[in-house]
Amino acid sequence: MSNTQVFIEENKDRFLNELLDLLRIPSVSADSKFKDDVRKAAGFIQDKLLAAGADKAEVMETSGHPIVYGEKMVSDNLPTVLVYGHYDVQPADPYDLWDSPPFEPVIKETELHPQGAIFARGSCDDKGQMYMHIKAFEAMMATDSLACNVKFIIEGEEEVGSDNLGVFLEDNKEMLKADIVLVSDTGIIANDVPSITVGLRGLSYVEVEVTGPNRDLHSGLYGGAVPNPINILAEMIASLKNEDQSINIPGFYDDVVILTEEERAAMAKAPFDLQDFKDSIGLRDVEGEEGFSSMERTSIRPTLDVNGIWGGYTGEGAKTVIASKAYAKISMRLVPNQDPDKITKLFQEHFTSIAPDSVSVKVTPHHGGQPAVTPTDSPAYKAAAQAMKDTFGKDPVPFRGGGSIPIVALFEQILGSKTVLMGFGLDSDAIHSPNEHYGLFNYYKGIETIPLFYKYFAEMNG
Amino acid sequence: MSNTQVFIEENKDRFLNELLDLLRIPSVSADSKFKDDVRKAAGFIQDKLLAAGADKAEVMETSGHPIVYGEKMVSDNLPTVLVYGHYDVQPADPYDLWDSPPFEPVIKETELHPQGAIFARGSCDDKGQMYMHIKAFEAMMATDSLACNVKFIIEGEEEVGSDNLGVFLEDNKEMLKADIVLVSDTGIIANDVPSITVGLRGLSYVEVEVTGPNRDLHSGLYGGAVPNPINILAEMIASLKNEDQSINIPGFYDDVVILTEEERAAMAKAPFDLQDFKDSIGLRDVEGEEGFSSMERTSIRPTLDVNGIWGGYTGEGAKTVIASKAYAKISMRLVPNQDPDKITKLFQEHFTSIAPDSVSVKVTPHHGGQPAVTPTDSPAYKAAAQAMKDTFGKDPVPFRGGGSIPIVALFEQILGSKTVLMGFGLDSDAIHSPNEHYGLFNYYKGIETIPLFYKYFAEMNG
Repeated sequence: MSNTQVFIEENKDRFLNELLDLLRIPSVSADSKFKDDVRKAAGFIQDKLLAAGADKAEVMETSGHPIVYGEKMVSDNLPTVLVYGHYDVQPADPYDLWDSPPFEPVIKETELHPQGAIFARGSCDDKGQMYMHIKAFEAMMATDSLACNVKFIIEGEEEVGSDNLGVFLEDNKEMLKADIVLVSDTGIIANDVPSITVGLRGLSYVEVEVTGPNRDLHSGLYGGAVPNPINILAEMIASLKNEDQSINIPGFYDDVVILTEEERAAMAKAPFDLQDFKDSIGLRDVEGEEGFSSMERTSIRPTLDVNGIWGGYTGEGAKTVIASKAYAKISMRLVPNQDPDKITKLFQEHFTSIAPDSVSVKVTPHHGGQPAVTPTDSPAYKAAAQAMKDTFGKDPVPFRGGGSIPIVALFEQILGSKTVLMGFGLDSDAIHSPNEHYGLFNYYKGIETIPLFYKYFAEMNG
Repeated sequence: MSNTQVFIEENKDRFLNELLDLLRIPSVSADSKFKDDVRKAAGFIQDKLLAAGADKAEVMETSGHPIVYGEKMVSDNLPTVLVYGHYDVQPADPYDLWDSPPFEPVIKETELHPQGAIFARGSCDDKGQMYMHIKAFEAMMATDSLACNVKFIIEGEEEVGSDNLGVFLEDNKEMLKADIVLVSDTGIIANDVPSITVGLRGLSYVEVEVTGPNRDLHSGLYGGAVPNPINILAEMIASLKNEDQSINIPGFYDDVVILTEEERAAMAKAPFDLQDFKDSIGLRDVEGEEGFSSMERTSIRPTLDVNGIWGGYTGEGAKTVIASKAYAKISMRLVPNQDPDKITKLFQEHFTSIAPDSVSVKVTPHHGGQPAVTPTDSPAYKAAAQAMKDTFGKDPVPFRGGGSIPIVALFEQILGSKTVLMGFGLDSDAIHSPNEHYGLFNYYKGIETIPLFYKYFAEMNG
């Protein structure tokens, strides 16, 4: 065992306790009432980077939440790794569905995590995965084995669309110059099936508002004669899907890259058990676009999902009201080569056009992200694959994920840097849901794997 | 001017201030957190009945909120009027849409109420209208001119379906025996167009719950491959209406009474200005079942309206979640001879049958009410019409309203008593909405008209 791995082994408990401290900070970027906590989390990261041995670490202002930047430059002759992660988390509501408070982490065993998992908002996404990099960095520094220069860019707005990251990258191109971007914000197929994400879906996210009458009305006095914005919103949403569950927005599929039969056959070799999938989320049956498998539906095909809907009386009991307004949050996952801005515009035009004359409709774009695919023949991919093979004992599977990490496209466009998505979470970790958790196995496996990536990446660039 | 009318004139300010005190009690029956306030309002009514001169007044227990019963028996030779009203009110949310707090009444002038209107939850529905009867009773008692025996039954569960009223009527048939039930919980067409409601729609009200996955999921990881309960609920709701805006539930129209062309022509003579209607609620266009006028759509035709919908993330910002559950509150207004229980059952069966296999659906009935039509050739109707003619200076128009007062059918079925719906509100009073109000003109006009009803009703029964 290398010195680095010994150091990691000896410091496991402290590495865990530090993460738990970070998880106790409710750094919810979407909700302004947590603004101070978001900043506190940034300060925490800065402190830990300095303590781990960074030459410098700064909390840098943006128009929104700050970005933490840190670096350790060893030598101009070594390749530079830019580690990206985020210290902000998703909102934790509905709080009442959590078995333990979302910002009071507890360790519990689960069927998939017999060694225990950390239950807390952000445990997997992304505090746990991001913090692995800081601890791996500390271990390499402590054992004098840091094989690459390293830069850290840890942001606080990933969960709200990374609105200020683009400007930050533009403004700090030189500072952020790197040979590869390394990110752990994705997952592996299973703890015994390591994988590396090579494809990501993009995202278009909008909020819609339908207004009927200018005030809430009594449904007895007015019902039948006036447009009910909730009924109309339901009808408009329903019309966005065709019978075969494809998306009914003109032009939506125009740029979708269609995979060859060979590519689909290769994908289909990844382990996937439909019954397990259904059981894991309590589904009687799956659903989705006709002509595609469940795995394809979450990777190579775009989607349209309502993420939230509200309007009228939602309290206890019965209230006979016709609401003035109804709202929904709608997101579309995009695949190569769909462009989020174009799709958002198509949605806006279409959704406005299908509204009956009796109502008015407002569509507000939230944020978007480009879809991305990473080549598997690059030195960085090979370094990641070798590192995982060393720690997991088997070759990782290249995998196309359903989620979106819009920053991958940003790094490519602005910095000209490719990204390796070496994540360690599981689909079942319930990120964005109540009872989010992250396996101790996965946390430690990540810390152990990262130094090996540096080693192999330096060798391949040497 | 009669002594009674002089007494009313001299006590106007006190009559108003007492109502304001009643309106300050947030007696929201639908929300258990207001339980004590509901009881406080009941005690208030009891006190005022006794102070006005009732022989007795009691707060009588039910399995839910109590019923206040009071009476003044003058002579066995006189007819008996049973006054029904309710002291409970609708929930006031959304509070932020009120210009002044819902339980802190203020008097403000409006275009339709140049003499001022009382802005408060319950000002019109039904505290203001119910309290007119207690003040008219006080005026008749004070001037020794009570022309009928009178019984008061003022309940606290009208806004949640009068669940315990039926049992109460059954248990107290003898005590409640009356020649007519008099209710002010409806409106007039305008302050210069008096009217009496002769038809009411019934009500079936259900809450639906659609469950997809057993927990909230990340829309990136799962989107496209799993049933989204919000999308599915929207599709199910959309399917409940046909292209022509008729309701798509098998059997729904089977029992609907179809009016003759003559009846429809008579109805069409009531004053109605479509542009005014649209302007009053800020609508660009009306909507409704093809082949019927706006007035018909709110009176002789049944409806289906979603009164509330919720699911997923509804907070600030964007959250990429697929919710486990989506909910809606749906009500159907019914016309003669539709039966609420039968319609609720048809809805349940149909809604469950259209759910895709991938989700489970729960339909919970809330409460219902029978539709009703009152004859215009009865002594009670004539007494009400004459009383209004005296105070308004013109004959009232018989009018079929869109709302539901389920108790009308209860009184008929259990006590064998007919009901006269002599209400004084305006459609624009925003009952069940933010900024509910009730005109001072209407409040005083009601107090003045009620003693005349007693006078004429006694004469016609003499």
